[in-house]
Amino acid sequence: MTLRIALIGFGKIAEDQHLPAIAANPDFELAAIVSLNRPSHIRCPVFSTVGDMFAGLPGGIDAVAICTPPVPRFAIACEVITAGLPVLFEKPPTATLGELDYLIALARLRNVPIFTAWHSQYAAGVPVAARALKGEAVTSLTMLWREDVRKYHPGQQWIWQPGGFGVFDPAINGFSILNNILDEPLLVNRVSMLFPANRQTPISAEVLFHGDDRKAILDWRGGDEDEWKIQIETASGKSVRLMEGGAQLEIDGAPRSLPPRSEYRAIYEDFADVVRRRCSKIDRDPLRIVADCFLAAERNAGDDFA
Amino acid sequence: MTLRIALIGFGKIAEDQHLPAIAANPDFELAAIVSLNRPSHIRCPVFSTVGDMFAGLPGGIDAVAICTPPVPRFAIACEVITAGLPVLFEKPPTATLGELDYLIALARLRNVPIFTAWHSQYAAGVPVAARALKGEAVTSLTMLWREDVRKYHPGQQWIWQPGGFGVFDPAINGFSILNNILDEPLLVNRVSMLFPANRQTPISAEVLFHGDDRKAILDWRGGDEDEWKIQIETASGKSVRLMEGGAQLEIDGAPRSLPPRSEYRAIYEDFADVVRRRCSKIDRDPLRIVADCFLAAERNAGDDFA
Repeated sequence: MTLRIALIGFGKIAEDQHLPAIAANPDFELAAIVSLNRPSHIRCPVFSTVGDMFAGLPGGIDAVAICTPPVPRFAIACEVITAGLPVLFEKPPTATLGELDYLIALARLRNVPIFTAWHSQYAAGVPVAARALKGEAVTSLTMLWREDVRKYHPGQQWIWQPGGFGVFDPAINGFSILNNILDEPLLVNRVSMLFPANRQTPISAEVLFHGDDRKAILDWRGGDEDEWKIQIETASGKSVRLMEGGAQLEIDGAPRSLPPRSEYRAIYEDFADVVRRRCSKIDRDPLRIVADCFLAAERNAGDDFA
Repeated sequence: MTLRIALIGFGKIAEDQHLPAIAANPDFELAAIVSLNRPSHIRCPVFSTVGDMFAGLPGGIDAVAICTPPVPRFAIACEVITAGLPVLFEKPPTATLGELDYLIALARLRNVPIFTAWHSQYAAGVPVAARALKGEAVTSLTMLWREDVRKYHPGQQWIWQPGGFGVFDPAINGFSILNNILDEPLLVNRVSMLFPANRQTPISAEVLFHGDDRKAILDWRGGDEDEWKIQIETASGKSVRLMEGGAQLEIDGAPRSLPPRSEYRAIYEDFADVVRRRCSKIDRDPLRIVADCFLAAERNAGDDFA
């Protein structure tokens, strides 16, 4: 039977990624959208609130995907989990670790499956890199995450507001990959953040992890081109290089041929499985890494962001 | 048999609290101090590093208490847990959640008991308040934590450096109490922090928790007097008021007579139990609450702190 799904929050990521992934997946049928703005080109029912949707949708729904900014998610997730609906969380799942731990406990109590989707973990190179690094001792790790915030978050204000994470919003994707491919935990040691004088979240950062020569360089000011790279060297002399956010992979300098893969189609395949088997799929570590960065950070003030 | 204990880190809290608590407890004998400064009035062996202590102490030791500032703790704890020694952590146990989770896992793997000591949880009024609030629905909660940083951290620099927590260093004591006495989780919602322009950690903050009318007001600038108060009202009309960091308690306006109690003597009684029964006692929630505060915070710049 097709799963009737509601998209809660209808911004750029919902429209660019969730909508086509749902349309391409025969397990799902888009039953409703919950959004304060009414998208004109969408044919399914649109409601302003989750409560309105529950009241107004005669056929009911079987699952939801939450794609709002992080801060309002907690109240929404409490409401839908309490109503017994399986939840897919766009990343990051919540604004705080306490909220996530509470929702995990609530979902267990109610026997409702939830899924913290980290889309970069579904990039084609990630499982191959994980196999290559199995049992290897890392001697050097550099993550470089550089993009232009104006390109990926045009006009968005929430990313600059408290709880919006700033450059850690894209960087959490890199952390979610590292967390998947390393045979050791990623532990924040020292962090330096640059805050535009007129913004509440950092525009760039450098993160040093425990262990020798393990670092992440994050930059939201852009450059000649986007770079989402991870380079890892190991004690046995192996070199693993993920590029394009995990879509491209080189091992020991040789490019690996990877099947083309849509991260979001793979996410919805997994979510169908989570819903049908009623088995949660939860990874809270990327959010913990970001929380540790903010806890440990040296804060520097930079120029205004315009 | 007496437990030979080493104090690692010998600052104000070690000298004021740990030393007399160890001296008063027949289960323990102070075997060594690890400190970069050699305290002149101490009769036991003093070493500069944990490695020097292992090499230099013929009789060995049975347990350690780590009282350094938070940032260097992780490396020290890895070393002593790997050596099989039970650890008492002065609060906060580590500088990050990732470090704490790693040490918990390491201690489990090595079958070494560890103890995250939150001294305010040992204040005389705390267990009585917890019993009074059992099963009660909170309708209002105010935590007021106000003290003069100059009085309690004279000349200390680490509290102002990244990872030093600022006003959350004392406030984590209040959070550790709330975590003990509430029948519901304490979830950070919105936070406002004030950073002196010349410091890396906040000097004051306001924390709003999820749920109506639950807040913490933190102030390190001092006032007429120190105030470490928690006031809780419940749906059944009960009023619970903890003062002096939990040492004084009023229920429904009536002061409760409490036995005089030394928090640190009670801590060392529990630590003896942890060591002898080889059973860890771990609470990571107060650190999680502080991490969530830094993750969610609105940051405001204030005057220089001089």
